Amino acid sequence: MESAVKELEEKGRAAKAASRKLAFLSTEVKNKALVNIAEALIDKQDEILAANKIDYEEAKASGMGEAMLDRLMLSPARLEGIAQDTKTVAALPDPVGEVLEMRTLPNGLQISKRRVPLGVIGAIYESRPNVTIDISSLCLKSGNTVILRGGKEAINSNRALAKVAQEACHRAGVPDGAIQLIESTERALVNQMLQMKGIIDLMIPRGGAGLIKLVSENAAMAVVTGGIGVCHTYVDKSADLNKAVAIAYNAKVQRPTVCNALDCILVHNQIAQAYLPAIAKEWAKAGVEMHCDKRAMAILKPIPSLKLVPAVDEDWGKEYLSLTAAIKVVNSLDEALEHIEKYGSGHSEAIVTEDHSAATRFLNEVDAACVYANASTRFTDGGQFGLGAEIGISTQKFHARGPMALKELTSYKWIILGNGQVRP
Amino acid sequence: MESAVKELEEKGRAAKAASRKLAFLSTEVKNKALVNIAEALIDKQDEILAANKIDYEEAKASGMGEAMLDRLMLSPARLEGIAQDTKTVAALPDPVGEVLEMRTLPNGLQISKRRVPLGVIGAIYESRPNVTIDISSLCLKSGNTVILRGGKEAINSNRALAKVAQEACHRAGVPDGAIQLIESTERALVNQMLQMKGIIDLMIPRGGAGLIKLVSENAAMAVVTGGIGVCHTYVDKSADLNKAVAIAYNAKVQRPTVCNALDCILVHNQIAQAYLPAIAKEWAKAGVEMHCDKRAMAILKPIPSLKLVPAVDEDWGKEYLSLTAAIKVVNSLDEALEHIEKYGSGHSEAIVTEDHSAATRFLNEVDAACVYANASTRFTDGGQFGLGAEIGISTQKFHARGPMALKELTSYKWIILGNGQVRP
Repeated sequence: MESAVKELEEKGRAAKAASRKLAFLSTEVKNKALVNIAEALIDKQDEILAANKIDYEEAKASGMGEAMLDRLMLSPARLEGIAQDTKTVAALPDPVGEVLEMRTLPNGLQISKRRVPLGVIGAIYESRPNVTIDISSLCLKSGNTVILRGGKEAINSNRALAKVAQEACHRAGVPDGAIQLIESTERALVNQMLQMKGIIDLMIPRGGAGLIKLVSENAAMAVVTGGIGVCHTYVDKSADLNKAVAIAYNAKVQRPTVCNALDCILVHNQIAQAYLPAIAKEWAKAGVEMHCDKRAMAILKPIPSLKLVPAVDEDWGKEYLSLTAAIKVVNSLDEALEHIEKYGSGHSEAIVTEDHSAATRFLNEVDAACVYANASTRFTDGGQFGLGAEIGISTQKFHARGPMALKELTSYKWIILGNGQVRP
Repeated sequence: MESAVKELEEKGRAAKAASRKLAFLSTEVKNKALVNIAEALIDKQDEILAANKIDYEEAKASGMGEAMLDRLMLSPARLEGIAQDTKTVAALPDPVGEVLEMRTLPNGLQISKRRVPLGVIGAIYESRPNVTIDISSLCLKSGNTVILRGGKEAINSNRALAKVAQEACHRAGVPDGAIQLIESTERALVNQMLQMKGIIDLMIPRGGAGLIKLVSENAAMAVVTGGIGVCHTYVDKSADLNKAVAIAYNAKVQRPTVCNALDCILVHNQIAQAYLPAIAKEWAKAGVEMHCDKRAMAILKPIPSLKLVPAVDEDWGKEYLSLTAAIKVVNSLDEALEHIEKYGSGHSEAIVTEDHSAATRFLNEVDAACVYANASTRFTDGGQFGLGAEIGISTQKFHARGPMALKELTSYKWIILGNGQVRP
């Protein structure tokens, strides 16, 4: 443990020192480094895949499940995808130096707000090794240094990926220290890292609910939490049935394992009789298990071949991350709003309606990062929103909310240009 | 203590409930409430001043110092000032509902970011009772409810002021619960308040370094810290001497007890011989005590009637809040930058120079909320910056930096309008 703490402290100091230089690094050098990383991911794929194979075999031998093994695995196609994403980040505008406001005060002072990096970003994440490159790319482009702490099960992959990225940065002229990987896999080190307030300006946890909770409860520095999505779609009495079926189907089925997937549909009682059989038949084809409240169950029970389960209290507010959906019939928009307020996680919430007033009330009153009228919650994503990439999805209101990309990794400073002005 | 906790919990719940309504309250009602508050501060001044007199007499009897007594005291003129400030807030644009970005994606989704309130603001502050109204006004205008916890020594004043504000809000149609004052003065209650993460969205401590530290180390929710200013002015070798004297004089003398006042001047050795006697003579007239490093002492010692003290290590990085200044002679801009990095608090830092490159380097490289070229650091202030008011000055990089006013008390939500779109 002692040597692990020493490693953490040394890498923290190096990251802090590099962050001063990285803040002024030209866009040209940063982009060159990103292109270098993309190319090196392909050039050095044999090394990377060999390292990943060690992790994969060890994880498999230790009994890791299929879904987790899939997240851990790299392949030439996946490396190609990560390389493409890195080039996308290179092509995005540099957020650093952007002037957010500028004006001249009556006394002649010229005052402006200029975007600057946050400094040092800490990232604690679980099995997916692509996060090593994703986060490094976004931090580099936004002028931040990063201290990475990946999962124990991906340590060989992460080491290989970080080495490739560090060498690619070095060749482009990025100051050494910009990307730091903590190699010790001691669990207690996470708690040490969460106390490095003077070094790490922002901590980003990426992983399951347990990790998010651990970090947000124990970090001494600022944290952006998110990634937990209990997402509702409310089908209003005035909904277009075709749209409502297409939207709920997409939100549940297109990729059920992610945070913006649908967990619960709330259906107005005046449309439930028409709508529920229609969506249930579609969902059934995709293998969706439906946890129904009493009224939904009464409507769906007569239909053959549905996977129906009576809903229990724990179904409300549950993030399934699987082909499971809760169904509840409500008497009004107000009841839907109350349910979402009580059980939503502030991530993504949708209404399907043709009634303008109902849409307006829903969009205004639901307190979530992303609120939708007549669209699938699956769109909550930095890439889909046109941000080019994302470092995560914030469900907090402070600093940044919803998909976070380059701008959300920055702060600003006030710059005041005078000619001898003093305060009267 | 039990009843105090009960009070806190009840008021927390009431503030949370009111915050849902306050988020949609019309600008008209909010402004009406603010004007009502301003008028009531004058109409009910007898009651308020009588309550303040109780606090003042008790504090005096208990041996409170002159400066603190002055901060505690209200007068008709001070109430008039607070009322004016409240009217100023009423006249500012409403930040809530502002659309920050809007675009239509290729798939036809119309996506926008709309400014929304943070929710419930907690404020923990010390003796100055005007803070009760200042913070309430800014929170109300920005659609946030507020839970106020003022100092024990001002409890009667705060109770009278909060009552006036609550009644004024009620008359305007603001939902009850928007302004909550914790009346219990038990000290342990602060720690309870700092754990109310599900209720309070942002905690703002206003007071001395001890309070700021307590809150930032113990709060479970987001905190904006600031108000601690160790401010340097660097006089470059190319400085215009007249500007440098006027700026350093103003920054130290115009109001020495505040966070943006000068604490230390750094003087380039090539100009020290000409500059130091000039500023020292002016400062001496105002009664400034100068803590000099060896080279500054050698230059100033021959001049009669100066209050000179040899600087000790503790002088560097010290916030004096009084007519005291540290003086250090440096050999280069780099040495000045290093000194500021080591000892500054990230609040306000200035360079006086006629050299464009030196100014540019200073403005780029100093990592502080506000960086100045050729102007007094005393301008760091929401009112001076044209924000109309301020709830504090943040020295952190996360969420908001520098003077914080209405916009800085908001978050945003993403609103996505579709016509049946699903993710491919």
